[in-house]
Amino acid sequence: MKFINTDKMKNININQGSFSIDNLNNPEQDKKLKIITLSGTESVTKNMTIYEYGDDIIAVDCGIGYPDSEMLGVDVVIPDMTYLVENAHRFKGLFITHGHEDHIGAIPYLLKQVNVPIYGNKLVQGFIGERLKEKRFSGIGENISFHLLTSEGEEVTVGSFTVSGFRVNHSVPSSMGLAIKTPVGMVLHMADYKIDWTPVLDKPIDLAKIAEFGEKGVLCLLSDCLGATTDGYSKSETSLSSTFHELFEQASDRQIMVTTISSNISRIYQITDAALKMERKVALSGRSIDQSVRVARGLGYLPFPDDAFITDEDAMRYLQKDLVYIIAGCYGQQGSALDRVARGEHSNIVLEQDSLVVFSADPNPPGVEEDVERLMDQLTLRGAEVIYSKIQENLHVSGHGPKGDLTTIASIVRPKYFIPIGGTVTKARAYRDLVSKLGFDKNSVFELLEGESVEFSDGHAKRGERLTLKQILIDGSSVAGIGPMVIKDREQLSTDGVFVVVVPMRGGVILRDKIEVITRGFIYVRESKELMNRSKDVIGRIIDKMNGNQINQDNGGKKNRKKDKQKKDQGSDLVEINAVNGDITTDVVFKHDWGAVKGKIEKDVGRFLYKETGRNPMVIVHGMDV
Amino acid sequence: MKFINTDKMKNININQGSFSIDNLNNPEQDKKLKIITLSGTESVTKNMTIYEYGDDIIAVDCGIGYPDSEMLGVDVVIPDMTYLVENAHRFKGLFITHGHEDHIGAIPYLLKQVNVPIYGNKLVQGFIGERLKEKRFSGIGENISFHLLTSEGEEVTVGSFTVSGFRVNHSVPSSMGLAIKTPVGMVLHMADYKIDWTPVLDKPIDLAKIAEFGEKGVLCLLSDCLGATTDGYSKSETSLSSTFHELFEQASDRQIMVTTISSNISRIYQITDAALKMERKVALSGRSIDQSVRVARGLGYLPFPDDAFITDEDAMRYLQKDLVYIIAGCYGQQGSALDRVARGEHSNIVLEQDSLVVFSADPNPPGVEEDVERLMDQLTLRGAEVIYSKIQENLHVSGHGPKGDLTTIASIVRPKYFIPIGGTVTKARAYRDLVSKLGFDKNSVFELLEGESVEFSDGHAKRGERLTLKQILIDGSSVAGIGPMVIKDREQLSTDGVFVVVVPMRGGVILRDKIEVITRGFIYVRESKELMNRSKDVIGRIIDKMNGNQINQDNGGKKNRKKDKQKKDQGSDLVEINAVNGDITTDVVFKHDWGAVKGKIEKDVGRFLYKETGRNPMVIVHGMDV
Repeated sequence: MKFINTDKMKNININQGSFSIDNLNNPEQDKKLKIITLSGTESVTKNMTIYEYGDDIIAVDCGIGYPDSEMLGVDVVIPDMTYLVENAHRFKGLFITHGHEDHIGAIPYLLKQVNVPIYGNKLVQGFIGERLKEKRFSGIGENISFHLLTSEGEEVTVGSFTVSGFRVNHSVPSSMGLAIKTPVGMVLHMADYKIDWTPVLDKPIDLAKIAEFGEKGVLCLLSDCLGATTDGYSKSETSLSSTFHELFEQASDRQIMVTTISSNISRIYQITDAALKMERKVALSGRSIDQSVRVARGLGYLPFPDDAFITDEDAMRYLQKDLVYIIAGCYGQQGSALDRVARGEHSNIVLEQDSLVVFSADPNPPGVEEDVERLMDQLTLRGAEVIYSKIQENLHVSGHGPKGDLTTIASIVRPKYFIPIGGTVTKARAYRDLVSKLGFDKNSVFELLEGESVEFSDGHAKRGERLTLKQILIDGSSVAGIGPMVIKDREQLSTDGVFVVVVPMRGGVILRDKIEVITRGFIYVRESKELMNRSKDVIGRIIDKMNGNQINQDNGGKKNRKKDKQKKDQGSDLVEINAVNGDITTDVVFKHDWGAVKGKIEKDVGRFLYKETGRNPMVIVHGMDV
Repeated sequence: MKFINTDKMKNININQGSFSIDNLNNPEQDKKLKIITLSGTESVTKNMTIYEYGDDIIAVDCGIGYPDSEMLGVDVVIPDMTYLVENAHRFKGLFITHGHEDHIGAIPYLLKQVNVPIYGNKLVQGFIGERLKEKRFSGIGENISFHLLTSEGEEVTVGSFTVSGFRVNHSVPSSMGLAIKTPVGMVLHMADYKIDWTPVLDKPIDLAKIAEFGEKGVLCLLSDCLGATTDGYSKSETSLSSTFHELFEQASDRQIMVTTISSNISRIYQITDAALKMERKVALSGRSIDQSVRVARGLGYLPFPDDAFITDEDAMRYLQKDLVYIIAGCYGQQGSALDRVARGEHSNIVLEQDSLVVFSADPNPPGVEEDVERLMDQLTLRGAEVIYSKIQENLHVSGHGPKGDLTTIASIVRPKYFIPIGGTVTKARAYRDLVSKLGFDKNSVFELLEGESVEFSDGHAKRGERLTLKQILIDGSSVAGIGPMVIKDREQLSTDGVFVVVVPMRGGVILRDKIEVITRGFIYVRESKELMNRSKDVIGRIIDKMNGNQINQDNGGKKNRKKDKQKKDQGSDLVEINAVNGDITTDVVFKHDWGAVKGKIEKDVGRFLYKETGRNPMVIVHGMDV
């Protein structure tokens, strides 16, 4: 991996630019600014937005999303970046607002296909670097072209776009908004943000600069909308500091663990500060926490003595009262460090009877509540005192500004148009209703689904075409996604299991007595031998009937029922079949169509099993020539 | 189904009792009161508590629970009632506090095994009756012996226990607490409750009676603890009434739908009242809503004119502005009436462009948030204005009292011991901490896991033995549960699918070239022919190696590597195997142990697939004699 350093980058800025006043005064009639929300507007995470003008394309953020409960076995979801890959020659730069996974996590998948220059600050650079070190991404990003972009005012010109960063506050330090100068006007891209007048490890949001943009005129504001249903204004990160001091004081002589999100460097700063004041060292536990602290310390974000931090392995040589653990697993993730501690399976940490375990994280991101509650229950059962937001105030503040913050920004920027981002359909609607209460026209707010776009020209905006996107689901080590068919199969397998019928044939003849059934996840096989045998009878009857039909046809159909009956009563070991489709490869010509036999068995066995059990396992009929 | 009517019941009360002052004054030394929390203390729902004294057993509530995300394909969870079945001759009565599914839903599963008399109020009786009408319960409860027990003061004596009901408030009318007089003292069983001074369709909680019990002395209070982490006092159900009026007024001429929990008759009363005042009829949609309203109206709970309610089918003949729909699906359940409306798949209701859809329910029970958000998003996308708690105050009040309510009850009852119920480990701990702040000893609070018990004698309590319980998971039409093995298989199937290797054999010889693989939910097969073929190579190599080993052994092991190599290079179609275990039934004696071959193929194919894909499908190796 190669990072271009800051000094070189500055040269590039100066030389690379094609933006000039001429461009602004001479807008080509047919050139429009197009903003496409590639993703991030329906599922909060997986953020990625495309800006397009003439031949130039840039993108903002490139994050992963998290599978919903229907995406079985899926590790992460990424944006469908086909449009950028197909237009790679026009794709000039990727700009990153901040270092959260849902804004940078999909970069390896992009770089695998397109080596686009990336612009962001040093912390973002550090986090991307850590991610690219993962084994499954080996070989990707070796020639990454990373350019530093800070919130200190320098501009980067890329094709028709001139981009600068400005300070916002969020739950990771050095988060930025982006001011994107385009030939048709200024666009402010404000992904995740809050207003914090006393942030930790950060300066307050640069409202002065934002106001200046507003004064000069902003064509469109893309704004975080996640807090649009929450009343009030943001609480400051600083408001938590006394909480940690007090908790640690109360727990003198006891084991203390605090869990939080690994990228929340400000929170880690506050916990460490409180720990050192109590003359405790900080023991880091969990890969994500380790990585995050290493990157942050390398950049000077955690200005504590070198011996302030130790590993959880080193911690085994200390008295527990001399430590505070900062430990991964605040969302109850299975296999996380805290989860292993709770199960008594952590190799370096043993939970003590009166341990104090503090959850300093949002307790309520969609879907994780169940896992968090289970983890807290386990810890309580093992004797720990568990402290969390519901029973202790000032343990967590959100990184997303609520209504008050959103209203402040909208009122200062006073854009002509709005695009709510980083939320859901419902949050975007709430944002629209919020700004409409400020007097903005409801129609000036574009609520976009993934792939939808807005076109700007002559100071006006209208909806553009919609990109047709696929869900890209990542499972395992493949950097390519898995398809919806696979997920659909997993859904059926997960609820009712699988029932495989193997039908051996020889010389185009089904060996009726050799048919076998295999099942998993459907019923407890040992207790259900009888059901298995009866299902074989069902298959046998189908085969007998097919033989009967064959004879019927030979003899003129319905008239020969008696003969047919006799044939049935005798039973039959054989049905000759015709391999027209299905999965048999043989050149014997069968009398019956195997596809039809297979379909009939699938349907009838499925019906039989449902009637008997009320369950619908996936029935797979596999014919094999032996 | 046969219900014993009220009058008969009164006779039974008088005749059945064996309780007397003598009993109280002559407690047998070895007789203890044992309270066993069969379930309900770890997962909020699935409530059931056992009371045992000498030879007498009664139980309180018998509810279903909901599967957590790991219980794949499971419909409901029920308490393990083995102890009651094994002691059926001593099991004298089941007492029901209120008509919620998590307190009555498992009754059919109990009645299938034990025909115990059930005691509860008329609404409870109605709801149980509806449930027993379901097809899968046909034949169950035909001789149900139901006895009316109200909160109006009558006592029922069953063996050593004398039970009376008293009024509490909750989100279903006529909810009761139970006062259980035992030979060792009074126990108050207060399942789900809140304090509501202005309830709808109900009288306020009977604090006077509760205080009287407190004055006389209560040995143990079993108390709802779900609200133990929520600040403040309950809001009254009445506080919502103006909300509905205002919303309906604002939506004049528009389509209106309100969704709530079907058993919340008070809420349905308020919605209906507001609808009729706006001269709209109420159209009921959804089986659960239909049933619930039918039962409640039959008992006089919804005293509106007969023509106030219509079906959603009838609603098709009305103008939408003349209706308010009360519709099932407030938890975003897939396939619910509102879900079908949102998908445009409801046969009788078409969502109009400016429809007002009101969610009047707790938005946040564990696990359902994701589904609710998805449903709200769909409705918004189809043009509806969606109103929910976060954007509109006074849309829902909880049925579970928060800290203020719990504190009030604990302070009035002043029991010697506490058992928090209807919560989780974390909620029970919070309840303990709450009452300890009132001055009660922490050690007087028994936080019980499912199956754990407390024994009371001589005015003292101590922990008793723990029942060993199984998880009883219900899937499909079987009234018996499915086992943990099946669930474990589903877990693996759900994340990575299935990979079946069929190994045909004849006369104890593997037909190497006829081996076939079948996979679903793992990879998209058409795109992965190559992987499938390479997995066959892996299997082929195992078989070759086994043949090689066989030869090695014959010739003295390691020395003959060259020969072995030659053999390998030639390849081999055959491996002779020895069917010691596994699933082959044949009397041919094989040279190799099939169990070992099978295990080796399973392991190596699994490893190969993981190495190639990072996924771990369930590998099933099936040998079949053809």
